[in-house]
Amino acid sequence: MPQFLTSSDADFESRFAALLTMKREDSVDVDDAVAAIIADVRARGDAAVIDLTARFDRLELTPDRLAVSEAEVDAAVAQVPAAERAALEQAAERIRAYHERQLPEDASWTDAAGATLGWRWGPVDAAGLYVPGGLASYPSSVLMNAVPARVAGVTRLVMCVPSPDGVLNPLVLLAARLSGVSEIYRIGGAQAVAAMAYGTETIAPVDKITGPGNAFVAAAKRRVFGRVGIDMIAGPSEILVIADGQNDPDWIAVDLLSQAEHDASAQSILITDDAGFGARVAEAVTTRLETLARRDIAGASWRDFGAVVTVRDLDEAAALANRIAPEHLELAVADPDALAAKITHAGAIFLGQWTPEAIGDYVGGPNHVLPTARSARFSSGLSVLDFLKRTTMARMTPEALKAVGPAAVTLAGSESLEAHGISVQARLDRLNQG
Amino acid sequence: MPQFLTSSDADFESRFAALLTMKREDSVDVDDAVAAIIADVRARGDAAVIDLTARFDRLELTPDRLAVSEAEVDAAVAQVPAAERAALEQAAERIRAYHERQLPEDASWTDAAGATLGWRWGPVDAAGLYVPGGLASYPSSVLMNAVPARVAGVTRLVMCVPSPDGVLNPLVLLAARLSGVSEIYRIGGAQAVAAMAYGTETIAPVDKITGPGNAFVAAAKRRVFGRVGIDMIAGPSEILVIADGQNDPDWIAVDLLSQAEHDASAQSILITDDAGFGARVAEAVTTRLETLARRDIAGASWRDFGAVVTVRDLDEAAALANRIAPEHLELAVADPDALAAKITHAGAIFLGQWTPEAIGDYVGGPNHVLPTARSARFSSGLSVLDFLKRTTMARMTPEALKAVGPAAVTLAGSESLEAHGISVQARLDRLNQG
Repeated sequence: MPQFLTSSDADFESRFAALLTMKREDSVDVDDAVAAIIADVRARGDAAVIDLTARFDRLELTPDRLAVSEAEVDAAVAQVPAAERAALEQAAERIRAYHERQLPEDASWTDAAGATLGWRWGPVDAAGLYVPGGLASYPSSVLMNAVPARVAGVTRLVMCVPSPDGVLNPLVLLAARLSGVSEIYRIGGAQAVAAMAYGTETIAPVDKITGPGNAFVAAAKRRVFGRVGIDMIAGPSEILVIADGQNDPDWIAVDLLSQAEHDASAQSILITDDAGFGARVAEAVTTRLETLARRDIAGASWRDFGAVVTVRDLDEAAALANRIAPEHLELAVADPDALAAKITHAGAIFLGQWTPEAIGDYVGGPNHVLPTARSARFSSGLSVLDFLKRTTMARMTPEALKAVGPAAVTLAGSESLEAHGISVQARLDRLNQG
Repeated sequence: MPQFLTSSDADFESRFAALLTMKREDSVDVDDAVAAIIADVRARGDAAVIDLTARFDRLELTPDRLAVSEAEVDAAVAQVPAAERAALEQAAERIRAYHERQLPEDASWTDAAGATLGWRWGPVDAAGLYVPGGLASYPSSVLMNAVPARVAGVTRLVMCVPSPDGVLNPLVLLAARLSGVSEIYRIGGAQAVAAMAYGTETIAPVDKITGPGNAFVAAAKRRVFGRVGIDMIAGPSEILVIADGQNDPDWIAVDLLSQAEHDASAQSILITDDAGFGARVAEAVTTRLETLARRDIAGASWRDFGAVVTVRDLDEAAALANRIAPEHLELAVADPDALAAKITHAGAIFLGQWTPEAIGDYVGGPNHVLPTARSARFSSGLSVLDFLKRTTMARMTPEALKAVGPAAVTLAGSESLEAHGISVQARLDRLNQG
């Protein structure tokens, strides 16, 4: 059974605090193993990647077989049924349209001192996208990572996807083609991350690595951070639904299960101002679990980490939501905009009863790569900005230097950075002579 | 002597590549020590911080003495000479004006399918600013970290600055006051980072930690990344100057030295299309080094890591600059805007001979916290965006769900995520019944 909490209960604060800090993942310590893998790839390049792929994916490769060829992609893509192709195309198009709005503007202005200031944005040269193999090899993930990179203007877009026993997912390859991936390698794990970060004879290094992965991939991303940019270290998925009593309990139950079915470590929480409704949703979850294909996973998640929280009113719901800082937040209430205005921390908000979270996983338009584990307190979902960087610009005229230079000389003196001061003073002296 | 390279020489490519990959820092492995410090602070809170401060800073504290009091700040600030106060105020005001322009806009629109989409930006609740003690305790750093946080709307702004043997820098405290820092703690090192990330009895946890520090601070930031946001792991400073022959060699020499004096591991590179000018700059560096207060540091940096590169023309200079992806780039050429248009990777660009890099360290307006070690390939200097996060928004109408829902159901099926599909299909079924 999930937990049932009621905000008016005496033990509520301690139980809610425990819910917030609940440990949902066994952090396997793979850091030493990953350090060794990265060192091996740096030292031996392709040969190391090939050895590690034989060991972990039971796949014998040669350097010329690391890349998935165009012909292989053609053959795989040809197998995709028309309905699935159309759905992927619609998703790609909607994701592209949303992310095109994120492109930031350059700026340049001249201030009162006569200084011309501003900034310019530009894309990274090359991005690497990690896609897990096996069960969690999702074509939607390819779109969500690759489309923003292409919208940002990234020209070289590398994808690494392991193919355990040689199996690749045709829909993943189609998603890669639809979103403009330029190179695909059939490798995975820490060795793929190392190859993208440091390069091998066959794989040129990239500047930024994004995409989800297992503990090895996460540890490798953490280690190569600094050498390349990374997106985030994603934890198990979460959903918080705030619903009033005017909802179909079955819809809300399925929405909760749509996160629970991802992973036994996922977490689904309902907050409602109607205790009876909360009980009906819990019953509906139990009923749905009887027939759900992934009932073992979803059932374990709901049992171990699920919660139904009854609150006095929606203001209280908003305050609790901000403490949770959920990855996904559904607002199934009469006035979702009013409630959304009270939310300060959430990765993505889904407004109203016609917006189940699953829409956002595929075809809504916004990105589904979102901050987990309360990190929406300080971070955002993946966006075009992750593939851009900003260069600041400053140009002084002699007049501007006269206006601001003396303060720089003073502060350089305070910080005992003499050459800093001289570099400004030498120019001021010339101006004062003139 | 610095290195002299000429792009037309046969060995240029190999020498330039070696310059790019030159190792400038001994990476001291403090990771195990830092892990132990963080675990200690998590377990024992204030008591651990106090013990570690006694050990590393030779300072005996009590819980009520962790914070620097308002009265202490008042007393310190009163010692600051008027000229330094005015300079700091001018700097703070210019930095504030620049960063206010960075505030991003929210967006909301309704698309052809009838879906209302968009995003909202909001500040983190609390930010923590690390300021090194001792020699590198720079008031300008306080401004560059704290002002963007305040402009972003961060209300709780915590500063940690170690005070070895009890000594605090009055200008650092004044800078904190001018930029709206709300709490100051006299602690440093990995223990300060741990206290800000996890909280202690006295110090409430923050959501984001920024600011420079030594190897312990850097390792601690890397470890707490995910629990809180961090800015970047900064390496030693660098400058690249591209200058034609129409410059005063002494000005360019001092500009190069203004980075070299930061740190023996700093790197200063001149690229010029005039070999004779390059030689005159090198001579001027030698002359200036004779009298510079920090000649040991600057001299070591210039000797070990400095370089003068002669190129055929400025196009070649731009191509090399993009491979270097410098933290600071000065364009001391006749048409700096034309050359800047060819630069794709740089943290900050300083245009024309009246814009020495030191202006940007203090009073230019743009941030001086910039990507080092070639990370301008994929990252940006500190900005208001570092203290904001974005929540994406989506709202479907029944009509919008009819338009995009079927594709979501199809893709959920492809990914074997049954509950995802049901959550959409259940709503579509209701619409189709009606």
